[in-house]
Amino acid sequence: MAHNSYLTFGRREGQGDFPTHLISGIPSYLKADVVPPITEKLKAHGAKAAVLGLIAVHTNTCRPGTAMGPRAVRCATDHYISHHGEFQVDLFDALRLVDCGDVQIIPGNARKTFDRAEECITHIVEAGAIPFVFGGDDSCPIPVTAALSRTCKKGGFAYIHFDSHMDTAKDVGGEILNHACPVSRTAELPNCKRVSLIGINGALNPPEERQFVDKYGIQMFTIWDIEEQGVDAVLRQVIEHCWVDGVEKVVLHTDLDCMDQAFVPGITTPECGGMTPREMIKFVRGFARKGIHAYVITECSPVYDPANAAARVAVRLSMDVMATIANPNGKGRV
Amino acid sequence: MAHNSYLTFGRREGQGDFPTHLISGIPSYLKADVVPPITEKLKAHGAKAAVLGLIAVHTNTCRPGTAMGPRAVRCATDHYISHHGEFQVDLFDALRLVDCGDVQIIPGNARKTFDRAEECITHIVEAGAIPFVFGGDDSCPIPVTAALSRTCKKGGFAYIHFDSHMDTAKDVGGEILNHACPVSRTAELPNCKRVSLIGINGALNPPEERQFVDKYGIQMFTIWDIEEQGVDAVLRQVIEHCWVDGVEKVVLHTDLDCMDQAFVPGITTPECGGMTPREMIKFVRGFARKGIHAYVITECSPVYDPANAAARVAVRLSMDVMATIANPNGKGRV
Amino acid sequence: MAHNSYLTFGRREGQGDFPTHLISGIPSYLKADVVPPITEKLKAHGAKAAVLGLIAVHTNTCRPGTAMGPRAVRCATDHYISHHGEFQVDLFDALRLVDCGDVQIIPGNARKTFDRAEECITHIVEAGAIPFVFGGDDSCPIPVTAALSRTCKKGGFAYIHFDSHMDTAKDVGGEILNHACPVSRTAELPNCKRVSLIGINGALNPPEERQFVDKYGIQMFTIWDIEEQGVDAVLRQVIEHCWVDGVEKVVLHTDLDCMDQAFVPGITTPECGGMTPREMIKFVRGFARKGIHAYVITECSPVYDPANAAARVAVRLSMDVMATIANPNGKGRV
Amino acid sequence: MAHNSYLTFGRREGQGDFPTHLISGIPSYLKADVVPPITEKLKAHGAKAAVLGLIAVHTNTCRPGTAMGPRAVRCATDHYISHHGEFQVDLFDALRLVDCGDVQIIPGNARKTFDRAEECITHIVEAGAIPFVFGGDDSCPIPVTAALSRTCKKGGFAYIHFDSHMDTAKDVGGEILNHACPVSRTAELPNCKRVSLIGINGALNPPEERQFVDKYGIQMFTIWDIEEQGVDAVLRQVIEHCWVDGVEKVVLHTDLDCMDQAFVPGITTPECGGMTPREMIKFVRGFARKGIHAYVITECSPVYDPANAAARVAVRLSMDVMATIANPNGKGRV
Amino acid sequence: MAHNSYLTFGRREGQGDFPTHLISGIPSYLKADVVPPITEKLKAHGAKAAVLGLIAVHTNTCRPGTAMGPRAVRCATDHYISHHGEFQVDLFDALRLVDCGDVQIIPGNARKTFDRAEECITHIVEAGAIPFVFGGDDSCPIPVTAALSRTCKKGGFAYIHFDSHMDTAKDVGGEILNHACPVSRTAELPNCKRVSLIGINGALNPPEERQFVDKYGIQMFTIWDIEEQGVDAVLRQVIEHCWVDGVEKVVLHTDLDCMDQAFVPGITTPECGGMTPREMIKFVRGFARKGIHAYVITECSPVYDPANAAARVAVRLSMDVMATIANPNGKGRV
Amino acid sequence: MAHNSYLTFGRREGQGDFPTHLISGIPSYLKADVVPPITEKLKAHGAKAAVLGLIAVHTNTCRPGTAMGPRAVRCATDHYISHHGEFQVDLFDALRLVDCGDVQIIPGNARKTFDRAEECITHIVEAGAIPFVFGGDDSCPIPVTAALSRTCKKGGFAYIHFDSHMDTAKDVGGEILNHACPVSRTAELPNCKRVSLIGINGALNPPEERQFVDKYGIQMFTIWDIEEQGVDAVLRQVIEHCWVDGVEKVVLHTDLDCMDQAFVPGITTPECGGMTPREMIKFVRGFARKGIHAYVITECSPVYDPANAAARVAVRLSMDVMATIANPNGKGRV
Repeated sequence: MAHNSYLTFGRREGQGDFPTHLISGIPSYLKADVVPPITEKLKAHGAKAAVLGLIAVHTNTCRPGTAMGPRAVRCATDHYISHHGEFQVDLFDALRLVDCGDVQIIPGNARKTFDRAEECITHIVEAGAIPFVFGGDDSCPIPVTAALSRTCKKGGFAYIHFDSHMDTAKDVGGEILNHACPVSRTAELPNCKRVSLIGINGALNPPEERQFVDKYGIQMFTIWDIEEQGVDAVLRQVIEHCWVDGVEKVVLHTDLDCMDQAFVPGITTPECGGMTPREMIKFVRGFARKGIHAYVITECSPVYDPANAAARVAVRLSMDVMATIANPNGKGRV
Repeated sequence: MAHNSYLTFGRREGQGDFPTHLISGIPSYLKADVVPPITEKLKAHGAKAAVLGLIAVHTNTCRPGTAMGPRAVRCATDHYISHHGEFQVDLFDALRLVDCGDVQIIPGNARKTFDRAEECITHIVEAGAIPFVFGGDDSCPIPVTAALSRTCKKGGFAYIHFDSHMDTAKDVGGEILNHACPVSRTAELPNCKRVSLIGINGALNPPEERQFVDKYGIQMFTIWDIEEQGVDAVLRQVIEHCWVDGVEKVVLHTDLDCMDQAFVPGITTPECGGMTPREMIKFVRGFARKGIHAYVITECSPVYDPANAAARVAVRLSMDVMATIANPNGKGRV
Repeated sequence: MAHNSYLTFGRREGQGDFPTHLISGIPSYLKADVVPPITEKLKAHGAKAAVLGLIAVHTNTCRPGTAMGPRAVRCATDHYISHHGEFQVDLFDALRLVDCGDVQIIPGNARKTFDRAEECITHIVEAGAIPFVFGGDDSCPIPVTAALSRTCKKGGFAYIHFDSHMDTAKDVGGEILNHACPVSRTAELPNCKRVSLIGINGALNPPEERQFVDKYGIQMFTIWDIEEQGVDAVLRQVIEHCWVDGVEKVVLHTDLDCMDQAFVPGITTPECGGMTPREMIKFVRGFARKGIHAYVITECSPVYDPANAAARVAVRLSMDVMATIANPNGKGRV
Repeated sequence: MAHNSYLTFGRREGQGDFPTHLISGIPSYLKADVVPPITEKLKAHGAKAAVLGLIAVHTNTCRPGTAMGPRAVRCATDHYISHHGEFQVDLFDALRLVDCGDVQIIPGNARKTFDRAEECITHIVEAGAIPFVFGGDDSCPIPVTAALSRTCKKGGFAYIHFDSHMDTAKDVGGEILNHACPVSRTAELPNCKRVSLIGINGALNPPEERQFVDKYGIQMFTIWDIEEQGVDAVLRQVIEHCWVDGVEKVVLHTDLDCMDQAFVPGITTPECGGMTPREMIKFVRGFARKGIHAYVITECSPVYDPANAAARVAVRLSMDVMATIANPNGKGRV
Repeated sequence: MAHNSYLTFGRREGQGDFPTHLISGIPSYLKADVVPPITEKLKAHGAKAAVLGLIAVHTNTCRPGTAMGPRAVRCATDHYISHHGEFQVDLFDALRLVDCGDVQIIPGNARKTFDRAEECITHIVEAGAIPFVFGGDDSCPIPVTAALSRTCKKGGFAYIHFDSHMDTAKDVGGEILNHACPVSRTAELPNCKRVSLIGINGALNPPEERQFVDKYGIQMFTIWDIEEQGVDAVLRQVIEHCWVDGVEKVVLHTDLDCMDQAFVPGITTPECGGMTPREMIKFVRGFARKGIHAYVITECSPVYDPANAAARVAVRLSMDVMATIANPNGKGRV
Repeated sequence: MAHNSYLTFGRREGQGDFPTHLISGIPSYLKADVVPPITEKLKAHGAKAAVLGLIAVHTNTCRPGTAMGPRAVRCATDHYISHHGEFQVDLFDALRLVDCGDVQIIPGNARKTFDRAEECITHIVEAGAIPFVFGGDDSCPIPVTAALSRTCKKGGFAYIHFDSHMDTAKDVGGEILNHACPVSRTAELPNCKRVSLIGINGALNPPEERQFVDKYGIQMFTIWDIEEQGVDAVLRQVIEHCWVDGVEKVVLHTDLDCMDQAFVPGITTPECGGMTPREMIKFVRGFARKGIHAYVITECSPVYDPANAAARVAVRLSMDVMATIANPNGKGRV
């Protein structure tokens, strides 16, 4: 390693894999290798987890900015190294984590954009890797559940949706791929077996969306259920609902607005009174321990977030899920 | 509705009353009809709740910005529709909610400004509507309690004050309408029967103000009382104190600084360790269920709040109070 | 006027038409009356100028935020009254200026959104009023030139486009209503007689777009032409090019990015070295003096603009155009 | 100097008078000695120039924030040392510059506040020092011209006012000490001999204020006069107008809003198209060379100014005036 | 008091020691007297507590900005007076609190900077005052523990470290005074008897640092320990660990990043899920009640904190510790 | 190209080399290929221009934040494609432009950091590529001129320094690699033939630094020289001074603070009255046309720059220099 001294992607001596000054370098997720979302290339790399940016924002009806989400998330990985200190596992070693870059969207064409996204995600899944998809607005689960649905071998899938909002609109202005529709589009998939909504909060839940929830037998926990029953009890009920026979895959989605806006200032449709980070972390670790097959995090809008806090929450949630999967029998504690 | 297609204040198809893109249009509160605060006009509209902006800021001694408060609150209603999803009630249908605009203040003349405000509020009360007043600094309760005091038929009124600070100063620099004085000015009113302070927190409570509290027999709960006894116990004690014989009306005031600054970054005199949104929401719902006659929310200063979070808290609190009143027997749950 | 004292939309004594505290009230443009964009209603009001918000943003490929543009512009009128002090004319008196609110867009559907916008603008034009349209991204001229084209009685129209970018793309990803295409879509209209580009600047002008300019005989002045020849000389040449026989109407468009980013921080695609406000003001006054029939201002993105400066430039440009039209023989000077 | 090593107000070795890390220490203006505004104390110190903060903001009708102005100005001196490199003069050596802190205002009482301010300024003047007063809103010149008027021995004074606005209102809502009134209150003083307005710009100049200008024979140059005639020609005319027989003192006032908002984002009533810093610097140096007796800079509102740019302009203007006075025969060049 | 009326450092009538407008004046900590960190001068003043700024930032590897920390903290004392309302004690009366300004650092030379800092702190300790040191990055405890270690009469000292990170690196790039090293440098001191880490949280804790913790027998509580056991139980265990025979002094350090980033947006290395202000306040009050001998607060970086919230937390923690010490038998309640 | 549809680094159809949504993907400079700064690798790629980040910030004495500079610059290339529209040249085709990432710095050790940087730059130069180095603070030219000096074959080099400050300090606190010293360290190099300073402005130029300028025969133009003589005249004089016999290489450095702070809000030591972008662009194009051998741009501090404007200026200047070099006989016009 003769050229060690001018390695621009240098490492902190004796500590593995990060530069001496953390805030430097070209920001892929955790500075992971960049590999396109093509099955053979991912297989060649041995990837078991793959990050994918999806800046689908063009059906947004609320505050702008989620187009900058994946960038913000990657930059927020700056303060971390591939070793997860609490789980004591190295994500590069254990999962061969890669960054697949961003799906090439078509501004103004949700259909074409989601077709491409679905194809990318399918490639990742078929390579045997878990996709970690960062939006973009919360229409982004639509191609994820579609791809996971399509890649089920013979069973179906379950979908867990953290959100202040039910997201079960039929359409918005006639457009069916809107960010008010990820749960409805998912629940309508033929092999969608179970759906759970967690963290419903606040006023913005129209009557028609509640009717959809009832009609489709969707399990729902509001913020007051969590406040009163506690995370552990809710977690247990969701697991009982979703990890059942016939469910082959589980897709997890965190719309960051399920958390109180104080913890995630940079989001599209903020609410107050929502979940705390500790509550949220306990939930996603719990689900990851059961085994999930895709994780989508949406609505990170850094333009309202001078300290990039929401993106940092997205990083923490995704790293905790990765580390739980990488070390399922570890005690998951510092 | 031939002109449906170019209705600029259009509605989301099939979902009642909000525009396709929420962040659009001219922002009255929830895009409610604008009606001047004149009794006959309010009666003609059938209003049972009326929003009023009061940008009295000229006695402020702390951080600036509350002159922008009512505007920020109205803009923060963007993410909502008139239907309150948790209480399952439509505020326009149930309360004929209107927006009365802002009181025309006289910069540099607190006396004249408050006289005008008091007249506006009296008009609202006499129309049979509940005033929802948004400040402005926390001198703003002064004309509200004055108007409510004046409109009591034969009994008196009670005043519930959420704040980190006692606000019981005699005067500041000789000026008696200062934002350190709303509780003292209110308690001195002849038919003020009961006063409760909730959420007192931090260092900025001078000895003279504490003496006033003792002298006037004001009920006081600090943040540590809430931490130790819990919201339910404190709520019950305040209700026992305020809803008593001889109390004909109850005025509720939330100085947003009673909450931890993380939840309300844009305020005048921030503190840490204060109330959380969930605690606050439970309190105001509890009081609204008993029945209140005016609600004032003060100290929203958007200039320190890039994501407009404090204003959003003000919106949520006021909408939750409105919905509780609109639906007192509902279960108040999603 | 018995109720003068609690007029919430009060006026500064002796000075006509603005509230004592300028930053107050519900922000229509200059607090003008709100009238829907329907010909008969505009005619009934006698409107000669009408503001319209158009938050078409869904084809954007650059920085987000123009969905908040019309709101930001309206709020930035706070510092003004209807009397334009330099031109010594009152815009309400002279033009019966109204605010038509925002076009109801369909998120994710540029075609439907622009159809509605075109219909709104046509109504305004047919009422005999000049539309002042605020975007939204710089696809917004597309429905404006379409409406003006359609309403030409027998001649054609000319289009003047201020921008750092040529905006003559054939399409983006196959979508032809993209914000890179307003000049191409306009130039292709059958009765488009003349097009002038002013302020072209910087690197982001692809070769294909230059070819379009050449092919369609579009007049073009770069920032260096303005620097070397001066505003007056360029202004004269554009007038000679556009105000010719067969041109019945002239549409003016300012993409704010034609100005140096220092003057307009809140825009979508900033450049440095662009026009200064004084240069820009001289241009638009010059064109307004000749007579224009629609004015579009686009790309105001307040999320990058803590002091709302870009919106204020949009207000100043539109007010200066209005005042020039209202007072064409005035000396246009303080 | 045994304790040199732990001098917390240490100096950069060999370079006189500033700390090694400029952004440190307790921020008086340039880290000057703090001396109260009492004649005998100022005389004892030998002060020839004295800084005074005046956070009179309570008559403001526009954007908030000037209460933070003096603090922002002092912090912005961080990047400077007492040696002015261009004029090659040390302000501490030449002027015995001191910082008198802030006038103790009475929130809500403009009259009492200005009485105190006038007394402070009178003390400074009687000590033989030039007051450099930092607002606060642009009512702040009122006590300055009052004090200078009062301390004229037998002649009168002239007043030069840089502003986009005429500021010649009779009153606002009946209040005569409003920030729209500094020129009217000054022009009405019996020994006010001459008034010049420079930089008038934009729409916000009501007809009544123009009438006042005409009635009182006030000299006025708009931004277009400066654009067309150039700074030198305007400067010469103002000097001819103001430095005449019978004028014993000249008071200079820069309302920062006379500059284009790009150069001073943090102000109360921004305009575009205004003066540039180079234009402004040339003006104030020109007047300082003739000799001025007080300098007021107002409307710095750091809450809209993430980089504190407007305060830095205030620092530069005041340091340039100080250095010009300290070195009137120097070439005033680097 | 003839000159009362123009006292620029005036006081609110009848309330002791703060100006009428809190946000004014030249910001030392609580506007305390400024006294250099020289033993004899501190003794002459009778100081029992002394604030010292230490902007050592030059080994930072994460987000920038802590150079502005001490300034931000001093400014955030604006909203307080010397009387602590909850503890009902006046800090100036009880502790003769002074502000010693900032250590003169040598940019790029950690060794020289820390030598100076250690000398300053030693002076404070030898004057019989408790140093309250505000960083700067979290290398700042290094000279504090060094000075306290050195001034132990015959016993040793204990060190309590609140942080999300273990900070037990051997070095970074060969540099041993890095901000990843305060715990290792302290634990290596010969008379360091006990070390406790509280609040360890998140992924950024490399394996080598954990090994150091184990090797040196450091007590460690993670955020999950606090979540599960509660503050009281952890507090008791730390007290049992640190207040033992042979421990003569206790140094307390709060790296603000031990708190959830929502409560302290302006810090260097933010985490989510960390401590809440109420948890933190209970801890430091508990330790202060036992008696501490120095308190360091680090990592306040106001450049990411538009509302200056993190600095306000630092103020609150330090004032609460001061008030506890000033009033150890008080009930510490409002 | 079967996988075109899910190419995450996709291209805008028909327009060469940028993604459909510009703000996407992993941000190397213009999304150029990333190649380590090793001669053989650069040669293998055929690079004629190479970007290098150098976040040396640890000797800074002014505002923080330049550690984030290279990241901000790379992100600001988002709005561009490799084709430079004005020069009509593709930078990837013409220069085989690459991004070499960031030098691995050693926090707290300027000497080791600069040794590494010098080695990186030497590699780039020896590969036949022009280094484009982005700081970091304005100590960053030190290793650049050292490397260029070292790689001169037999002659010497000239150094052109744009700055408000002379930067000719002997040292700061004994440290000689401080950001006040790049000109002094460069001028002292034995084969440094010529030095020109352009844009000197404002007060912060200590007497000792001026003496250095005189002693070393450095050519100096202040902002007033540019204002009076114009860019062309100054440009000519600098060319005459620097492109002389014996000068084999020319190093160009722009400290962004030479421009008025309005154009570059995010910098370390802002000034007002400085150069405009148009002036600056004309200068660097003029020098690039003569031929330069390295270009350093320093002091970009995005933490004070909500719209990332300063970084965008850095991008524009560097792209204009690249394009001028790529197309020296082009007319350099749109």
